[in-house]
Amino acid sequence: MQTELSKKLGVEHAIFGFTPFPAVAAAISRAGGFGVLGAVRYTAPDDLKRDLDWVHEHTDDKPYGLDVVMPAKKVEAQGGQALSEADVEAMIPEAHREFVRATLAKHGVPELAEGEASGWRITGWMEQVARSQLDVAFDYPIKLLANALGSPPADVIERAHAHDVLVAALAGSARHARKHADAGIDIVVAQGYEAGGHTGEIATMVLTPDAVDAVAPLPVLAAGGIGSGEQIAAALALGAQGVWTGSIWLTTTEAEMHSRKLTEKLLAAESSDTVRSRALTGKPARQLRTEWTDAWDDPTGPGPLPMPLQGLLVAEAVSRIQKHEVEALLGTPVGQIVGRMNSERSVRVVFDELTRGFERAIDRVNRIAGR
Amino acid sequence: MQTELSKKLGVEHAIFGFTPFPAVAAAISRAGGFGVLGAVRYTAPDDLKRDLDWVHEHTDDKPYGLDVVMPAKKVEAQGGQALSEADVEAMIPEAHREFVRATLAKHGVPELAEGEASGWRITGWMEQVARSQLDVAFDYPIKLLANALGSPPADVIERAHAHDVLVAALAGSARHARKHADAGIDIVVAQGYEAGGHTGEIATMVLTPDAVDAVAPLPVLAAGGIGSGEQIAAALALGAQGVWTGSIWLTTTEAEMHSRKLTEKLLAAESSDTVRSRALTGKPARQLRTEWTDAWDDPTGPGPLPMPLQGLLVAEAVSRIQKHEVEALLGTPVGQIVGRMNSERSVRVVFDELTRGFERAIDRVNRIAGR
Repeated sequence: MQTELSKKLGVEHAIFGFTPFPAVAAAISRAGGFGVLGAVRYTAPDDLKRDLDWVHEHTDDKPYGLDVVMPAKKVEAQGGQALSEADVEAMIPEAHREFVRATLAKHGVPELAEGEASGWRITGWMEQVARSQLDVAFDYPIKLLANALGSPPADVIERAHAHDVLVAALAGSARHARKHADAGIDIVVAQGYEAGGHTGEIATMVLTPDAVDAVAPLPVLAAGGIGSGEQIAAALALGAQGVWTGSIWLTTTEAEMHSRKLTEKLLAAESSDTVRSRALTGKPARQLRTEWTDAWDDPTGPGPLPMPLQGLLVAEAVSRIQKHEVEALLGTPVGQIVGRMNSERSVRVVFDELTRGFERAIDRVNRIAGR
Repeated sequence: MQTELSKKLGVEHAIFGFTPFPAVAAAISRAGGFGVLGAVRYTAPDDLKRDLDWVHEHTDDKPYGLDVVMPAKKVEAQGGQALSEADVEAMIPEAHREFVRATLAKHGVPELAEGEASGWRITGWMEQVARSQLDVAFDYPIKLLANALGSPPADVIERAHAHDVLVAALAGSARHARKHADAGIDIVVAQGYEAGGHTGEIATMVLTPDAVDAVAPLPVLAAGGIGSGEQIAAALALGAQGVWTGSIWLTTTEAEMHSRKLTEKLLAAESSDTVRSRALTGKPARQLRTEWTDAWDDPTGPGPLPMPLQGLLVAEAVSRIQKHEVEALLGTPVGQIVGRMNSERSVRVVFDELTRGFERAIDRVNRIAGR
């Protein structure tokens, strides 16, 4: 499965796999795809360094990349200085804090133990943290730097190019895609409505060719709704130079999910069990629908705050829900493809099924076309 | 472009085209596709008969079909008798009528002329009207009867089969698709989130293979987001036995749109200019976003009534907006593919571009697959 972009990056198959887990990223690259490690959960540069060391040692010299979450615009105080986490905390209304407490109490969610840190942090979303991640990342031979929140700042793009690193940015519309292209990035990831995480309203079937036309000759990767070889064939027919997958790796045996119950929820979920909600970060993100998302999406409640306030507001609550595995509230960003994630298999087995399914789909369309 | 289903129906290409316009339906069939005439706007059986006569004379003996809107469940009074239109009218709250009047007044929408009938009627949605349409339709050699609102009643399916007519039903989820299959229909139209008209929340990329797996070996047609040959190739790669298109025919030269301004709005609209709203019928239907849909979707307003109340409530208002071409309020059901409908061309030109684009897409995926 070779496109201009996969040749440029030196991968066997034009399948990009985004994951927060080093073992999954390395296994995707070893299998012949392009593993992309998500950096958002690393608040300490040393932790990222440790995991990139591990990935580097376990990819058999195959290429890999890094995904950061760097806001296109800085969160600034009125004077123009960057805001600290404490400044942002101070903007959260007390009524919203009370709603968090009441919702947790309603479901009997225990406190964290004394001194136990909140595992889920929003800090990786703040520009200074993302920049410290980059200081680490450019010491490794990464081939791709992706940004999940718009184009990275111009100096970051320059720095990446100086290291021969291609820059990718996620886009939810043709207009976003053009903006990224104008900013000087190299690859657009067209993130369809059905995708997990932050996403817009235009579905992959429509968005992919829209983005391809908007930024040609820049390459577009299709994201959203892709978890089978048939879906890969569809994305490539739409003009993509590859696919950007994420959700399907969450239930692989190499994935280190923080909760067994959450893995079981993912395995049991159907396509209709996700919701595009602002509950987690303040921006619409597709995730498992839970009583937590229902509470935030309830029109009689206070509703979510804008980013980055909502993320800070719910960080500790999400950690408590996860640590105590409170089933009704336990969720995670995931796409509509969750309906096909019905068994736990190794990355290699999932990957080989993708390439076999792709070949089957090509056979099928050739038969229909009379070739 | 031949699948088992297209062979069974005797069409050259597995492209189904739904349209309210007889001239478009006939032209699709003549071009080598399968034209499906929408019956919902025919309140008088004689009008339907006149147009079916016309279609029959202009298809060069190629096959064609009919689409009705027959509710799966009857709207019944508490006693169990079928409700009349007057019974349903009586259920509409006065506050909603006042909201319609106020919204029209705000935009200075003139009244209809004395004695001028409301052109847009909901009555075709009522089962007795749909049944009178069938009494007409079965006198013609239609090959397909599609229902846009779930499985038709068992006796209608039997009657269709007795006339050698295949029955299709629209589905928005795998569960709906299975229900249709259990009811004895022959074809599932998997209607993705991005489609125009009534639609669910699961996008075509995910819904198509879900539906294929749910009802195999019954054939599935993919609907939603399909307006190019590349999108047809994608749908077929996903396992569909053909595509169900609708929106793209609205801006063909054969289409008899009631308003020139509306055609121009369609030609100018982008993929992001539609909304899934309950404003028109009470059920979520994708349509152009207008100040009319905004008014109904505004959380500070009264919000839409359930089907069939909303359709009755807004029927006259919609007619007034259309007749007087009040631009800010003027809309129509259409899918996200509206972003690709940028010029007026004949059905034949559009159709030939679909088949050429399909061949290009097959070339492309074969190159990528190294074949």
